[in-house]
Amino acid sequence: MSLLAIDLGGTKLASAIFTTEGDLRQRESVSLDGRRGRAVGALIAEHARALRARESPDPVQAIGVCVPGIYRAESGTVWAPNIPGWDDYPLLAELRSGVGDDVRVTIDSDRAAYVLGESWRGVARGSRNVVFIAVGTGIGAGLLVDGRVLRGHADIAGAIGWLALRQPYRAEYAGCGCLEHHASGPGLVKVAREYLTSDRAYDGVLRGHDPHALTPHDLFVAADAGDPLAVAVFDDAIGLWGMMAANVISLFNPEMVVFGGGIFGPAARYLERIYEEALRWAQPISVRQATFATSALGGDAGLYGAAKLALDEVGSAEPRALVAP
Amino acid sequence: MSLLAIDLGGTKLASAIFTTEGDLRQRESVSLDGRRGRAVGALIAEHARALRARESPDPVQAIGVCVPGIYRAESGTVWAPNIPGWDDYPLLAELRSGVGDDVRVTIDSDRAAYVLGESWRGVARGSRNVVFIAVGTGIGAGLLVDGRVLRGHADIAGAIGWLALRQPYRAEYAGCGCLEHHASGPGLVKVAREYLTSDRAYDGVLRGHDPHALTPHDLFVAADAGDPLAVAVFDDAIGLWGMMAANVISLFNPEMVVFGGGIFGPAARYLERIYEEALRWAQPISVRQATFATSALGGDAGLYGAAKLALDEVGSAEPRALVAP
Repeated sequence: MSLLAIDLGGTKLASAIFTTEGDLRQRESVSLDGRRGRAVGALIAEHARALRARESPDPVQAIGVCVPGIYRAESGTVWAPNIPGWDDYPLLAELRSGVGDDVRVTIDSDRAAYVLGESWRGVARGSRNVVFIAVGTGIGAGLLVDGRVLRGHADIAGAIGWLALRQPYRAEYAGCGCLEHHASGPGLVKVAREYLTSDRAYDGVLRGHDPHALTPHDLFVAADAGDPLAVAVFDDAIGLWGMMAANVISLFNPEMVVFGGGIFGPAARYLERIYEEALRWAQPISVRQATFATSALGGDAGLYGAAKLALDEVGSAEPRALVAP
Repeated sequence: MSLLAIDLGGTKLASAIFTTEGDLRQRESVSLDGRRGRAVGALIAEHARALRARESPDPVQAIGVCVPGIYRAESGTVWAPNIPGWDDYPLLAELRSGVGDDVRVTIDSDRAAYVLGESWRGVARGSRNVVFIAVGTGIGAGLLVDGRVLRGHADIAGAIGWLALRQPYRAEYAGCGCLEHHASGPGLVKVAREYLTSDRAYDGVLRGHDPHALTPHDLFVAADAGDPLAVAVFDDAIGLWGMMAANVISLFNPEMVVFGGGIFGPAARYLERIYEEALRWAQPISVRQATFATSALGGDAGLYGAAKLALDEVGSAEPRALVAP
């Protein structure tokens, strides 16, 4: 028996076959190539069929899919802001009809998959209370509570980019949230641009840069070279990331806080400083029980988590099968 | 069959008999009278025995106890900062030996009991994702996730008084947390004292007051009379309570946020303004799904929650009883 994992991103589709022990056996990746709406659903179904067919000696028993947005478990639909036409896309129905009735399909959000993946086969292996914080284009959290993903009333839990951490409220927070405005990938660039515009005395390496072409990578390079503007950008972000970590620790009392996404990555160099910040703010016993780590699975966290979604579905079905007449 | 609920506070012990439908049948309350350590445990056991004996026609099948601190489920011990000698007090063992083996005993923290009580028989009746925020001497949260209390890795979840909401970090936050420093009962008084000391032009009703004798009640009265200092104290607290509510909404996506504790009470008059604040900061879909309310059970929330703890323990045992040989 094997598991088929599918990680849908905003621009590409990755898929892989896993053993039930969590070993990745084969993988592939394909660009979405500008597809939108039902064409994306059809592409997923097509890939699922093709990978299943290839695995005939060790058949795929379950399919797990993670999506870049919100999965509404009750309706089986997906909201994915980066995929045109996916405001309330009926992905579960599409895949059930596209891959056949003989295989179970489970879907969840990418952030749910990340924390499932890391606690199954990554840095949080074996932990039952884990917060995974993905910092990239946005900031989202996967929350594992007593071994189960926290979904909330309508599957929107974990919207950590909206954390309110700095008064006064600014109109720019309306579209993305206070934390995300300041400390996501685009947020770091925004802060740097504000500094560049306001600090006319600044004469560092970023001065000649077109402010509109700045990237987080430029900032990491400049900060490593000691550039005061880039250093100030990260000092500010480290302060906010530390408050963010402190707040999830005080609320959730997790064993582990895992930082991932495109920014961690390179911001892993600041993990110790983020911990020191969190140590000041958080419930003091709780923060000492929480290990800070960066994702061990990196860009594969979604695939591993999707495989775990599939495994959990098969696992949960077995007792039912045993008592069936 | 009936349930025995015990709510241990920092200065008194309340107990009550409930039906399994959640109707409170009789109650009593006794002062701790300066008791400490094992004497408090003995008092609880004595009350439990006495109440059981009185209910002989409808025997008590389970006892639920809530405590003003942290209950460590694994060891059966309690940390309660306001009860001398209760750093790691073996309450479960004490009660098991004190009330007999024929009745189940379940213990949890007061904040867990509050949210269980409100979702069982209070304002959040029937809701499965609820945040109860108790604002009094301290600030703590009871978190109901998919119908279950969120405990965290070591039972310290819900330490919401430690929320980091305002930079820069101040040394005063070390003992109680940033939010609690500014916006608990004693926090409101601290803020008022700072204003009184720093604003020499202030000429309002609080001017003649001994700053060290100020109470939250004085502040509510002064704010209702339009006193600018008291109004400023609550403006600040409302801002922080709004950020707090926004943050639990973005993270947990609850159906309901319930405000309780001694301050809500009177701060119920500000609920609409707190909601308006939260509306600015929180994940926009999530905040519109969350109903704000004040506790319906008030000072009895702990008793109702303790009764629900007892009921859940009996309920969870019934399937086992049915299949026993």
